[in-house]
Amino acid sequence: WPGNLLLAAAYVSDAQYNRNVPFQTSPQAIRLYYFYNHWMMGMATYIFICVDLSLALFEEPALFPLPFVATALTEVLCLTAFSVRLVHFAKVTPQMVFWKDMKNICIMVTIMVTLIDLIIYGSLAAVHIHSIRWTRALRPVFLINFPESRQTRRAFRSIRNTLPDILYVFLLFLFSVLMFSLIALKLFGDRGLKTAEGAPYFTNILEIAFELYVLVTTANNPDIMMPAYNVNWWYSLYFITYIIINTYIFMSVFLAVVYNNYRKHLKAFHILKVKVGTEFVVKEATWKQLAKVVAPDISSSHLELLLRISDEGQQGYVDKMSFLRLADLLNIQVVTVNLRRHPLEAWVPRVYQSSMSLLVQRVVRHRQLGEEDKQAIPLGGWIFVWAYDVIILINAIFIALDEKHLFISYAEWLFLTLYIIEILLKLYTYEPRAYFGRKQYWNWFDALIIFAALVATTASAAIQSARKYNSRQILDIVLILRILRLLRVIITIERFRVIVTTLINIGPTMLTFGGLVFVVYYTFAVIGMEIFYGKVQFFDPNFTSPDALVCGNPALKGSAFARDRYCKNNFNDLASSFIVLMELTVVNQWHDILLGRGLTGFCCSLEWPGGFALVTHQAAKLYFILFHIVVVILIVNIFIAFILEAFFVAY
Amino acid sequence: WPGNLLLAAAYVSDAQYNRNVPFQTSPQAIRLYYFYNHWMMGMATYIFICVDLSLALFEEPALFPLPFVATALTEVLCLTAFSVRLVHFAKVTPQMVFWKDMKNICIMVTIMVTLIDLIIYGSLAAVHIHSIRWTRALRPVFLINFPESRQTRRAFRSIRNTLPDILYVFLLFLFSVLMFSLIALKLFGDRGLKTAEGAPYFTNILEIAFELYVLVTTANNPDIMMPAYNVNWWYSLYFITYIIINTYIFMSVFLAVVYNNYRKHLKAFHILKVKVGTEFVVKEATWKQLAKVVAPDISSSHLELLLRISDEGQQGYVDKMSFLRLADLLNIQVVTVNLRRHPLEAWVPRVYQSSMSLLVQRVVRHRQLGEEDKQAIPLGGWIFVWAYDVIILINAIFIALDEKHLFISYAEWLFLTLYIIEILLKLYTYEPRAYFGRKQYWNWFDALIIFAALVATTASAAIQSARKYNSRQILDIVLILRILRLLRVIITIERFRVIVTTLINIGPTMLTFGGLVFVVYYTFAVIGMEIFYGKVQFFDPNFTSPDALVCGNPALKGSAFARDRYCKNNFNDLASSFIVLMELTVVNQWHDILLGRGLTGFCCSLEWPGGFALVTHQAAKLYFILFHIVVVILIVNIFIAFILEAFFVAY
Ligand code: NA
Repeated sequence: WPGNLLLAAAYVSDAQYNRNVPFQTSPQAIRLYYFYNHWMMGMATYIFICVDLSLALFEEPALFPLPFVATALTEVLCLTAFSVRLVHFAKVTPQMVFWKDMKNICIMVTIMVTLIDLIIYGSLAAVHIHSIRWTRALRPVFLINFPESRQTRRAFRSIRNTLPDILYVFLLFLFSVLMFSLIALKLFGDRGLKTAEGAPYFTNILEIAFELYVLVTTANNPDIMMPAYNVNWWYSLYFITYIIINTYIFMSVFLAVVYNNYRKHLKAFHILKVKVGTEFVVKEATWKQLAKVVAPDISSSHLELLLRISDEGQQGYVDKMSFLRLADLLNIQVVTVNLRRHPLEAWVPRVYQSSMSLLVQRVVRHRQLGEEDKQAIPLGGWIFVWAYDVIILINAIFIALDEKHLFISYAEWLFLTLYIIEILLKLYTYEPRAYFGRKQYWNWFDALIIFAALVATTASAAIQSARKYNSRQILDIVLILRILRLLRVIITIERFRVIVTTLINIGPTMLTFGGLVFVVYYTFAVIGMEIFYGKVQFFDPNFTSPDALVCGNPALKGSAFARDRYCKNNFNDLASSFIVLMELTVVNQWHDILLGRGLTGFCCSLEWPGGFALVTHQAAKLYFILFHIVVVILIVNIFIAFILEAFFVAY
Repeated sequence: WPGNLLLAAAYVSDAQYNRNVPFQTSPQAIRLYYFYNHWMMGMATYIFICVDLSLALFEEPALFPLPFVATALTEVLCLTAFSVRLVHFAKVTPQMVFWKDMKNICIMVTIMVTLIDLIIYGSLAAVHIHSIRWTRALRPVFLINFPESRQTRRAFRSIRNTLPDILYVFLLFLFSVLMFSLIALKLFGDRGLKTAEGAPYFTNILEIAFELYVLVTTANNPDIMMPAYNVNWWYSLYFITYIIINTYIFMSVFLAVVYNNYRKHLKAFHILKVKVGTEFVVKEATWKQLAKVVAPDISSSHLELLLRISDEGQQGYVDKMSFLRLADLLNIQVVTVNLRRHPLEAWVPRVYQSSMSLLVQRVVRHRQLGEEDKQAIPLGGWIFVWAYDVIILINAIFIALDEKHLFISYAEWLFLTLYIIEILLKLYTYEPRAYFGRKQYWNWFDALIIFAALVATTASAAIQSARKYNSRQILDIVLILRILRLLRVIITIERFRVIVTTLINIGPTMLTFGGLVFVVYYTFAVIGMEIFYGKVQFFDPNFTSPDALVCGNPALKGSAFARDRYCKNNFNDLASSFIVLMELTVVNQWHDILLGRGLTGFCCSLEWPGGFALVTHQAAKLYFILFHIVVVILIVNIFIAFILEAFFVAY
């Protein structure tokens, strides 16, 4: 292709994938830029990022321990790959631009710092001194800062823009908590009250402030109120006022502020910023050629449609504005109304158009039919129409019954056959390619569930007849697939479909959101492992040694943490840490999990050596408040805002 | 006044107070209607409603017990008053309209039913048979259905309109919970797992469904997960999926649906529906006379302004449209920009306008000044400007210190004096009537706090010097007043002021909302008292008999309820019931409070007589799920929607 066309195609492709990278315009640089944007390169970068992040599974404290040498070498390899990618980018983009971009600086600094940390840790390990691999918490920087994770970065930027507003509300909220703490100290401090655990009640202003902060999450309600309430009925008014103001009003205000900002920034999400240096007019033929380069899998009819829109005056050329619109157009998912004939109609037209065949089609299609067409279905057809709703119902009853009975296990084959017949009937009625269209989530779901159930049930039966034993894992899978099948009930009710479809439509945005949560969780997990590693041990549930009963930590004796068998809620490896962080996100019992009575290994007992316990204790509080602010106040609220917005648009 | 004017005034007054009552138009009927609408009559009705509602405090189970005869007679008195009010209304309104109005039917039926219930209960009590006064739960009907509580009724109607949408989401949500229950039963049911309390884990589908419903409120997280998680890491994925789908997504969808409907109905709140039968043109003089009748406390200048707006063409008369607009105009709070001169300026103009006096005014006013005016303040003035911020800071430190020290108790007098001086200075600078204007919340707050503190501190000092003893109650009040004073810090920071002002502005709507909550709480409290009365007893905290340790119920031995000293969380009187319901609204530990281990008096122990325990147990579950749906899913979400909307409008 001529150089200019290549350049233009690069621009359009940038716009299509929402890239905003200035690059040098010499033919060599453009070719290098094409190579840089090749999907193989992006994929390789992602794989290296995944490997780098997953190292936390193998490093101490490890889920699958590997020697330090192995993980260190892998990390160096990853860092090299990142450096190569960065150098490649530096070759593509003008130097000035490269050095001005914070993302590149971030990556470079992180690579350097990680290398230094690795060397220090390695040398100290060689002389048997244990130090902290603190740069592990920085690994998500690579995930965020490579151009491929634009969406996650945008989400972060959106959060950053929300921060000033949040800050003011947070300061006011803190002020309110402190005011209430002061009142509590004065009201309850010198009465000699005791909590249910026998600890002094509301005697230290910092303790009170923390307890009241916890009350905002509702986690210690009503425990925090009981000692005062037991003394006098009227003191409950203090706590009710506190809950109304801080738990309800302030938490709603946080949601309001996050939501409001999210709406503002949401608009920016949809605007494509495209910079094209020179003005030009594109001839129709060139335009078509160009579109073919950018989107090779586009159909000719789609292309023709786009051209009609781009070249409104039918003047034979596309002006700059229309040309820019091409990018938008290529992002639009044109829903092609399928008018293609069914293959069977082409092959055996007589049979397919026979009155019997038409009746079958009408019956299968009946939910999409108008009133008139529905009346054309005879009574026998109606029985068939409702048959599958009845089948699902009977299936549900069978599932609820015990599946060990032989009769029921035979019935399972019957149900599978019936469902397969249903899918075949649908394929007979609808054009197969339309039926399995890209947006036909329900059809895909249907077919996958049935196909997987068929495979799993067959496998299970084969294993059982061959080896006379049941594989628990396969049985579990078969079972879940069987139950998921009941979801088909939703399809039959229009209102349910609307709700579920709305939720499915926000799926892609939710994935971005998942990236955000992952980054935050990863960082907190790594920090958590460094602070709380080994404080709590998990023993097999059947193990009843005294150690197992106190989670391997004598300080937990008699604590709620040990009593409720929370021992597995620890920071001893990455997977466990993620689960604990999930529990902290839900904010129930978190003061039990984290505070005093759990991860810090510091319980209410006073025998525990003072200084260290105090330090971990305070660290745990800070760690927790920070996690709460970032995850619950910011991220969960963004999540809620997403769903609210999606429903406001849908309704 | 002539009859027509009286009629017109009645219409306008109806519009102003948002009444929509058709009434007969004979002069006699109008006079009766005036009498019906007299504020004394409304007040009397409210007092009777309050008395009727407060009867629950004196009836068994009572906070202040009174004999049945006394409460029954009072109730009959109230019912008579309601009947009289209703008959009066029947005389005013056309018969057809009266009998078509559901409100009147509701009140009549409730009066009848309550009388019958009273008679039955009384006769049975006479022969010493205890029955249930179930119509007590209907008492809020009077509060809702009398024309005076239009706002609360509207809020209820808004909820009723939300119900269909909520219902679909709720069904889908229930379906999802049942699906997950089925999966849980199949996955975990036959593994012989035990919960931390030793009960079988996930073996009964109804139990599972209830536990999973509780998980939606997060109250039993992570306890519900631990037995499965302790067996295998992978099972946590089941719970994480459940929490994401049901706790986060579905609960947000509920908020979205409620919010969406609320916004729709919000518009209806603001539309005044006025029906005027005949067209007429009002002369200017008549108009003024009319306005004076409707709003006797209106100022002449305000009236003149209204007339200018109503009579746009200055034609000397007001047409129908403008006349109708009067109603709107009378509802508008015209913020009169105060250009009145300060009284001192009129009395001693020389002194008030002297350069010293002007400087003082400028310093006091400095927050409202432009940059130029600020530069006119000399350095000495600036010290004074910041002096009060410093004083509040020092005051905060003094409050945090122990107030028993003599020096600090003297300092308190100093601070009080300083604050009084500040208020006097402000009154010197601003016109006093403008300073204490209707919307000047902060000034009112300031003055009230300082005045109350002055009174309370004086009273406290007087008591102490006279009787050599400190009254704990007065000290508490003094203390809270002193701390509330620190709220003045908020006034000094503009951003804080905006947030707080937004919250204060939704205050009136919140009051309506409070009525709604009260009605629901009252009904649930009365029902709760009937079901759960006496199941749990509260003993003095210092009382250590074995009975006190198990809340007077042997079934609670070893339960979390008794261990956490929740005994005062019971349904033994109205006040306690309200507190328990508040705790249930916050949904933390509610399964402990209500279920199995608390109010039902049915614990995990199997010695408890089977049938009865089972009945109460199931009743408790139903009671609780209903309360959760009504209060948390509906009302709390409306509350959050209010706050969101207020902030979207404000920002
Ligand atoms: Na909770």
